[in-house]
Amino acid sequence: MDDRKLLDTIRPLIGEAETADDCSMFDLGDGRILVSSTDMLHETTDFPKGMTEFEMGWMSVAVTLSDIASTGAAPSQVLVAVGLDNPERLYPFMEGAVYCAEKFGTKVAGGDIDSHKELTAVTTAFGIVDKSVYCRRSGAFVGDAVCVTGIPGRAQAALDGREEFREFLLTPTPQVSSGQKIAHAGASSMMDVSDGVVISLYDIADASSVGIVLDGKSFPLFEESEYAKTCFLYGGGDFGLLFTASDAVIEKLDINYTVIGRVVEGNSVILDGVVLPRKGYAHVWGDA
Amino acid sequence: MDDRKLLDTIRPLIGEAETADDCSMFDLGDGRILVSSTDMLHETTDFPKGMTEFEMGWMSVAVTLSDIASTGAAPSQVLVAVGLDNPERLYPFMEGAVYCAEKFGTKVAGGDIDSHKELTAVTTAFGIVDKSVYCRRSGAFVGDAVCVTGIPGRAQAALDGREEFREFLLTPTPQVSSGQKIAHAGASSMMDVSDGVVISLYDIADASSVGIVLDGKSFPLFEESEYAKTCFLYGGGDFGLLFTASDAVIEKLDINYTVIGRVVEGNSVILDGVVLPRKGYAHVWGDA
Repeated sequence: MDDRKLLDTIRPLIGEAETADDCSMFDLGDGRILVSSTDMLHETTDFPKGMTEFEMGWMSVAVTLSDIASTGAAPSQVLVAVGLDNPERLYPFMEGAVYCAEKFGTKVAGGDIDSHKELTAVTTAFGIVDKSVYCRRSGAFVGDAVCVTGIPGRAQAALDGREEFREFLLTPTPQVSSGQKIAHAGASSMMDVSDGVVISLYDIADASSVGIVLDGKSFPLFEESEYAKTCFLYGGGDFGLLFTASDAVIEKLDINYTVIGRVVEGNSVILDGVVLPRKGYAHVWGDA
Repeated sequence: MDDRKLLDTIRPLIGEAETADDCSMFDLGDGRILVSSTDMLHETTDFPKGMTEFEMGWMSVAVTLSDIASTGAAPSQVLVAVGLDNPERLYPFMEGAVYCAEKFGTKVAGGDIDSHKELTAVTTAFGIVDKSVYCRRSGAFVGDAVCVTGIPGRAQAALDGREEFREFLLTPTPQVSSGQKIAHAGASSMMDVSDGVVISLYDIADASSVGIVLDGKSFPLFEESEYAKTCFLYGGGDFGLLFTASDAVIEKLDINYTVIGRVVEGNSVILDGVVLPRKGYAHVWGDA
């Protein structure tokens, strides 16, 4: 069983709407939405080997800020709960967490400290966005352009040993400013690609009840190779944003992005006439 | 080293104000304050032996709701991140979490699931409170009554083997409704007693730059004994609220509470002429 299947087992308890997006939403009642996201990371399973405490702190904050960014929200605050095997690791870890938060216009406003056998970090971020521009996975329209920011695949390549891409794996950059610009321009749906491009496209397709046809020649790859294309499609760990928008909307966008496909009727993600497998990065549980 | 000393080492990074209360605060800019709190719990160190998954889920939500309650806020949403050694534990754990949230007028709106060697839960709650009634540790005035809700000490007694108090340890009740009433009546400071009454009184005294004189005869004890008095003063795990308020304020309060002392000039917590030791429940780190 993987994380996504496990989540299915508790959907009846939590609710469909509540489990449909990376962020939870709360209507502030005055035209604003409060979005929040929490992520749990463990040293042995989530942090690449050789990572420093500073980098772990950075990444812990960056993953939740990436979720906040994908709604179009400006991040308000970050809370960091950390379990430590050795209290001396706290200071450099928090340095990385605080540095990342401040770099993206927010701050670490509190948290919790606990002793634990393995370094475990849970970061919760929240942000605020106007209801009129708030983005989620649902909302993609047939005819919209499918766009991505950055060059997905480099984090996966770094994980496979490509040292030159190490920074994309160890200190990934949440697209906080781009997310706000994309939302304010009027994108119809958005999410981050941290689980992989194809599986994220399926998330958008499912939530929006549409299909997506990709144009392989348009992919922004880190090199011209089949390997780079595979990393682009299925690799995890990148923090680019995937969004859909009408041509009129993308024309006025003043950020770097690439149009990689179109929203169509249907329910699949298709490349060169072939339905792509619904796969990406997911925790797999050993006993199932 | 204990948690409180460890927190001191990162105060310069996070900020004095940000580490002064159990909740973080964010000014919504329209007369309302968003408060939030995050707590990390581990099976081996934080959950009493023999606890069911349902009770663990309940407690994980209850501890953060207790923090939210102590500000006078109404809880808005709860996020639950849980690391599991066995995915089959997820459903009953989430049942307890969802049940507790709904019982206190809020809901579990999202979270994260991860595989982990030991069951680890991090719950984050947030709530909203009018700026004019928002309570924190600071604000106690000389002359104020010092009050407590409930009968602190029963969770500690249960931990010591007193079976009749088991519910106070395993499914503690956050004082969500009382917290709002206390704040709206005009209390000058408030916090919960989960680390113990005396250490919490020191937190209020420190934050408010005052002293506190206790009246031992007034303590609400679970039985007339020195043991019950020790549990009252130093036991952890209870979710009562400690607050200070003028006599005019407490006269109009329509909740059950006990006046246990007075705010005075000074910086100590005093009982029968003796300065009490600054001790309570705290994680102690093995290697320091």
